[in-house]
Amino acid sequence: MGELGEFALIARVIARLESGPDVVLGPGDDAAVVAASDGRVVATTDVLVDGRHFRRDWSTAYDVGRRAAAANLADIAAMGARATALLIGLGCPADLELAWADGLADGLRDEAALCNASVVGGDVVRSDVLTIAVTALGDLNGRAPVTRAGAQPGDIVGVAGRLGWAAAGLRLLQSGVSDGQLPDALRRPAPPYALGPVLAEAGATAMVDVSDGLAADLGHIAEASGVRIDLGLKALRTLGADGVTDDDLLTGGDDHALAFTIAGDATLPDGCIQVGTVSEGSRVHADGEQITGGHEHFGASD
Amino acid sequence: MGELGEFALIARVIARLESGPDVVLGPGDDAAVVAASDGRVVATTDVLVDGRHFRRDWSTAYDVGRRAAAANLADIAAMGARATALLIGLGCPADLELAWADGLADGLRDEAALCNASVVGGDVVRSDVLTIAVTALGDLNGRAPVTRAGAQPGDIVGVAGRLGWAAAGLRLLQSGVSDGQLPDALRRPAPPYALGPVLAEAGATAMVDVSDGLAADLGHIAEASGVRIDLGLKALRTLGADGVTDDDLLTGGDDHALAFTIAGDATLPDGCIQVGTVSEGSRVHADGEQITGGHEHFGASD
Repeated sequence: MGELGEFALIARVIARLESGPDVVLGPGDDAAVVAASDGRVVATTDVLVDGRHFRRDWSTAYDVGRRAAAANLADIAAMGARATALLIGLGCPADLELAWADGLADGLRDEAALCNASVVGGDVVRSDVLTIAVTALGDLNGRAPVTRAGAQPGDIVGVAGRLGWAAAGLRLLQSGVSDGQLPDALRRPAPPYALGPVLAEAGATAMVDVSDGLAADLGHIAEASGVRIDLGLKALRTLGADGVTDDDLLTGGDDHALAFTIAGDATLPDGCIQVGTVSEGSRVHADGEQITGGHEHFGASD
Repeated sequence: MGELGEFALIARVIARLESGPDVVLGPGDDAAVVAASDGRVVATTDVLVDGRHFRRDWSTAYDVGRRAAAANLADIAAMGARATALLIGLGCPADLELAWADGLADGLRDEAALCNASVVGGDVVRSDVLTIAVTALGDLNGRAPVTRAGAQPGDIVGVAGRLGWAAAGLRLLQSGVSDGQLPDALRRPAPPYALGPVLAEAGATAMVDVSDGLAADLGHIAEASGVRIDLGLKALRTLGADGVTDDDLLTGGDDHALAFTIAGDATLPDGCIQVGTVSEGSRVHADGEQITGGHEHFGASD
């Protein structure tokens, strides 16, 4: 992108985008305007750094875009909301190929489209380290946000989505195996976005996006809600795959499943399975043993 | 920050923040929830990179935070909106001092407080290049957004805020002069946030935040509105200061003044002065001569 200035690159990226139903004013002005139907907006932000959160030799630009969008869209779903918009901050090395930026924009656009959301704004600057900052906005449509603090003794614990796939995929990629469903799962997570609002309507009492590993993320619910969570490995294994270990299921991140608690007599929506129970006490246990351990993005220490 | 993990650093930063009146759900969950009173939210994002958009040997962490927030809060004001919330993505080198992160958080918080806005969320990751991505949200309170496309022949052009101060301050800092009002203006811009909504109420037909230089930013209005803009240097000079050249007034960025067009018979709000006129035609002219030239952040080419 050395030969192209910031304005030209922004214009080029904007030309690849499409505006969905929630966009009141799209890209190109000082700021965008997005619908927030019930007078509130849900907002979250994530930063991805080349070599730490993605690797250009492992993933195409398109897949990096899909994955960067997914991480944020899943956070919106985990509040029980539907995503409406993304804003993208891009730090570009001077030697980044234009085709790479195009692919990234296409990936961001296409992942957002899964939620009917649009890329509405962004900023492109020069940086020695390729950096992608994504902000997602969402709409609760009148519902209360589903926080981490509402789990109650007597609730059950459910999960929707993949567990451990990305962690197992990372191990394969690190050992030189780049093809197959597990490496693909790391490159392109498949969060169950639509189930976020469905679970909120169904009465989920607490919900998180599994980005740092199931044990760590349910640990946030256990701590914020003041409860004990017991998981059963047999049920968890149904969310894994060939090559996914029990440790991957419990501590692998980056699949962006939704983990939630809900009243014990609730009927789980299609696509969700029960994996545990909530009781008085503290911390997360699997088959009776207290578990710890979190997630390391690509083996880095952040 | 090497000895502190991501969660610990986020918790430390959150502890320094305060939640204002628009925060429905503050930091600490998968996403925040912010009021959007009229069913729409204004959103913008900017990325600042160490050595390009700020220099740690020229500015304190606190001032970098003030300036990073200001750049985004001014974009919200330029739509005619009041800022409600900031989200911060921070890429931190391992050797960044904790006191620096604390200072940054304090600066972001205090600049946001000038708009009654709050830092509601963020992400902290490891990066070899200190990078600050800021997203600002805002509320139009029922008004139409003031875009770049509404200027009409017969309108006048007005400016609120400083012009050329930061550019002159940059020149002084580059020559080794670090004290004085001009270097301070680069370190800490003072956008006239409150005038954004006031100008929208007063009937501003187009408005921009002057971040890339007055000529370039009014050029966006001239192009989007299909009009010619004529500026008078005599009036512009009243917004400069000792040491600010005519070129600084026209092409200096980073002061984040508000530039706007409004009907010729409008009464300008206090704090605004008329600097030009709008007519049929194209491009921006000063004292009759067409001007070009934009802004270089710290001499970099982005």
